[in-house]
Amino acid sequence: MTSLANPVVKDIRALQLKKERARTGLFLAEGLKLVADAIQEGWPLKVLAFAAKVRQQPMVQRTVEAALAAGALVIEVNEAVLEKISRRDNPQMVVAVFEQRTLPLDAVDLAGTTVWVALETVKDPGNLGTIIRTVDSVGGAGVILVGDTTDPFALEAVRATMGSIFHVPLAVADKAGFLAWTRRTGVSVVGTHLKGAVDYRCPAYAEPMVLLMGNEQSGLPDDLAAACATLVKIPMAGRADSLNLAVATGVMLYEIRRSRLGSAR
Amino acid sequence: MTSLANPVVKDIRALQLKKERARTGLFLAEGLKLVADAIQEGWPLKVLAFAAKVRQQPMVQRTVEAALAAGALVIEVNEAVLEKISRRDNPQMVVAVFEQRTLPLDAVDLAGTTVWVALETVKDPGNLGTIIRTVDSVGGAGVILVGDTTDPFALEAVRATMGSIFHVPLAVADKAGFLAWTRRTGVSVVGTHLKGAVDYRCPAYAEPMVLLMGNEQSGLPDDLAAACATLVKIPMAGRADSLNLAVATGVMLYEIRRSRLGSAR
Repeated sequence: MTSLANPVVKDIRALQLKKERARTGLFLAEGLKLVADAIQEGWPLKVLAFAAKVRQQPMVQRTVEAALAAGALVIEVNEAVLEKISRRDNPQMVVAVFEQRTLPLDAVDLAGTTVWVALETVKDPGNLGTIIRTVDSVGGAGVILVGDTTDPFALEAVRATMGSIFHVPLAVADKAGFLAWTRRTGVSVVGTHLKGAVDYRCPAYAEPMVLLMGNEQSGLPDDLAAACATLVKIPMAGRADSLNLAVATGVMLYEIRRSRLGSAR
Repeated sequence: MTSLANPVVKDIRALQLKKERARTGLFLAEGLKLVADAIQEGWPLKVLAFAAKVRQQPMVQRTVEAALAAGALVIEVNEAVLEKISRRDNPQMVVAVFEQRTLPLDAVDLAGTTVWVALETVKDPGNLGTIIRTVDSVGGAGVILVGDTTDPFALEAVRATMGSIFHVPLAVADKAGFLAWTRRTGVSVVGTHLKGAVDYRCPAYAEPMVLLMGNEQSGLPDDLAAACATLVKIPMAGRADSLNLAVATGVMLYEIRRSRLGSAR
């Protein structure tokens, strides 16, 4: 298919819009290896699109077979179409549309899990995607989206996960639901706060636990800070007021991992 | 000034282009507090632009006086102009044009400094800006841009620094120059590498030092890896192949800071 007016291509392009992602429950992922892995793990595939010039590659052929076996629509497109779908020059030669998967917080089973990262009204899709990637990197349990966050299935967020969107469970809750869940489960909640009383290196973090991070602009609101068993602070030198949210989350997650494994020192 | 055709406004907008930033040696910064701090610290100011609606604010008036005293051009603009300059809705009400400042690597005096982050051909302006911000946050000494990196004075990079662009020295060098400098100074260079032999928590990092990070796609090339006294590895769990560059740099910088201060454990 070489026409941007083709209905399937139009439907895929429409997934650039949040309301279309919400209406359809679908999202776009880019890249052969990542798409092939997701299909193999049973992610519900709707459409596979690939560029004519990669048709002969064995891994593309295997992926096309897997897609057809999964009942997906498979289309061959030209690069102009892929550029429009991906909104970038030099697009990936394979893209795919999958069903979104999130779970309600009540379906989260904490038993035997490690660390969950709860993000309150995170705004930046790049930050959210990067945090999902980092949770995967430390063997974290999942991400909990609290309140009105940016969409984890937006293209920029999915891209920043580098494939971890397919491996890291995403739970969603509003603030009241999150607070009720923490009380009911009694899970240990550690928040980061510029006014935190404890240096982030001090606690012996015990898993399962929730690492609760405020958003980019305003940090943790008071009612969420009050729900934390411990408020820790990452020290700041120089003139910087704060760390980037994804960097702060990464520093915390590797510190929590240190508690899990014991210090190497 | 309310016209987008105004020559000053056109010159400011042209700074969105890398070649115009290179030709003029200027860059754009946004936000009243950040601009006021930079003027106070003596950054060479060329133009201050502010929205009519903030004219009466005392801090704006003080900043205008400081700008006039510094010999800068001061202009009042409307919000449509600020939107065009900033390429965003809800723009900052104060923006300013400053002279860029970088130093050649030979001008870097290591004596008494802490950690320098050297970035080899970093590609993403958001990553670069975030790393500059993190270096500021840990009391790092500066950032060394090695080879053909993204422009630290691009708007997206400057924004991601959250003001730290004015506080963190930036040195530039090509790869050969960087390698010659490390040999000549004998500075301790620690690189991160997925094949690193040593867990990142093991070394007792001694400052001054250089933390050398490869780029987003390919990590450290062999000749740079060979120049490192130590190659460390940040462990990965799960399916993730690697961390985001800014997150990896943040985890390393806080680990190096731990060596500086001694462990809290």
